[in-house]
Amino acid sequence: MWLKSDPQSELLFPYFYATMSTLYLIPVPIADDALQTIPPYVRAIVEQLDFFIAERAKTARHFLKASGTSRPLQEITVVEIDERDPQYAREAFLQTIKSGRDIGLLSEAGCPGVADPGADIVALAHERGVPVRPLVGPSSLLLALMASGMNGQSFVFHGYLPPKRPELARALRQLEQQASRQKQTQIFIETPYRSQMVLEVALEALQPQTRFGVAQDITGAQEWICSLPVRDWPKAGKKVLEKLPAVFLIG
Amino acid sequence: MWLKSDPQSELLFPYFYATMSTLYLIPVPIADDALQTIPPYVRAIVEQLDFFIAERAKTARHFLKASGTSRPLQEITVVEIDERDPQYAREAFLQTIKSGRDIGLLSEAGCPGVADPGADIVALAHERGVPVRPLVGPSSLLLALMASGMNGQSFVFHGYLPPKRPELARALRQLEQQASRQKQTQIFIETPYRSQMVLEVALEALQPQTRFGVAQDITGAQEWICSLPVRDWPKAGKKVLEKLPAVFLIG
Repeated sequence: MWLKSDPQSELLFPYFYATMSTLYLIPVPIADDALQTIPPYVRAIVEQLDFFIAERAKTARHFLKASGTSRPLQEITVVEIDERDPQYAREAFLQTIKSGRDIGLLSEAGCPGVADPGADIVALAHERGVPVRPLVGPSSLLLALMASGMNGQSFVFHGYLPPKRPELARALRQLEQQASRQKQTQIFIETPYRSQMVLEVALEALQPQTRFGVAQDITGAQEWICSLPVRDWPKAGKKVLEKLPAVFLIG
Repeated sequence: MWLKSDPQSELLFPYFYATMSTLYLIPVPIADDALQTIPPYVRAIVEQLDFFIAERAKTARHFLKASGTSRPLQEITVVEIDERDPQYAREAFLQTIKSGRDIGLLSEAGCPGVADPGADIVALAHERGVPVRPLVGPSSLLLALMASGMNGQSFVFHGYLPPKRPELARALRQLEQQASRQKQTQIFIETPYRSQMVLEVALEALQPQTRFGVAQDITGAQEWICSLPVRDWPKAGKKVLEKLPAVFLIG
């Protein structure tokens, strides 16, 4: 490993470097006790790492322990991504690649950088010529899309919609128009305690023929996925959604 | 298991039924010999199934064999999705749920129903009240997005862009505008033999500060992922893309 000392050229000529580091993007289960969704090759890579950047150190350590790493946890460094001070994790990343150590980036749940912080660190890795290796694991968005029966050849993820009923209803109708005009599946999320409200507003606001989908607690013990035209939802039985993570789809 | 005989009401009251069937959505490796990307719990479910619907029967059987199913392959039924005659796979699905057997839906590579046929069968399952269980595995779109360092809180997948240079350049510039105006990552794919052309056109057509990403042969032996502002691409070295599956991103 050889590092140039001029910090300016570090920025401008990332591939000029020969760092030994690799950035591994490590998925974490999206449901309680769903460790089976993390393939063994991912856990084998985790086993080899002793430096992690994570959304929350506490849950990262919980995952590392559950994943069965044989390394004593006190030998493992977990740096938290502080959204108020993004520079902190960036600095830790830059220091670590100088020593040539590999780095694991962990999400709070699911895949790092997707509907989650972490993208910033990945971008920095590319700028510095650090190879980025995304590892396979659960993504609630992708699993919900697969399970929706809606168009998977063209889709959008919007993140969160406005939380209040009238604005939410308006946003849902906009997505409905986009879905119908562009034949494009519209995906969004909401915090668990608002799931039931989203379902109620959607079934009121959307056209009868519009397909609406809910995927709740995917890969978990209470997994529940329903995707039907709005007019057929009452036939699916009056469902009260649990306070569990859910993905919503319009198609 | 009890099935109503009136076909009309079968359509209208799907949840009136108590079919014993479940539709499992089974991911398949996206790179050669990348069986490690399929978690063992998925392979355990595959092991229990004897009826599959797949994009291509030949590759489906190849996967089943590689996955190590102990069932003799001649005991396994694989029905192909014929895009010219979608009714064929639908009928096979309907017949099979009458017998209460579970069904596996297989993609050619990656996740069924995402950038792939199969969504139609999933929609039919929902209509008939058949539980749909999406299983965890590799998706080139999701892995490319994770590895891009671009915005994963808002993104669009467009499928294929126009194949010819002038139209492609125009489409790329449109996506660039959308990416910059809406802070939304734009994802698309192209057939492997056009990868190099896409890279050349993109580096010519896009603005210097626009971030452009290529993720090639993800999870494979020739995995190569680069995501940089267009102006920094020359510093990454003149890359000639292999004729391998690739995902492209603008952010």
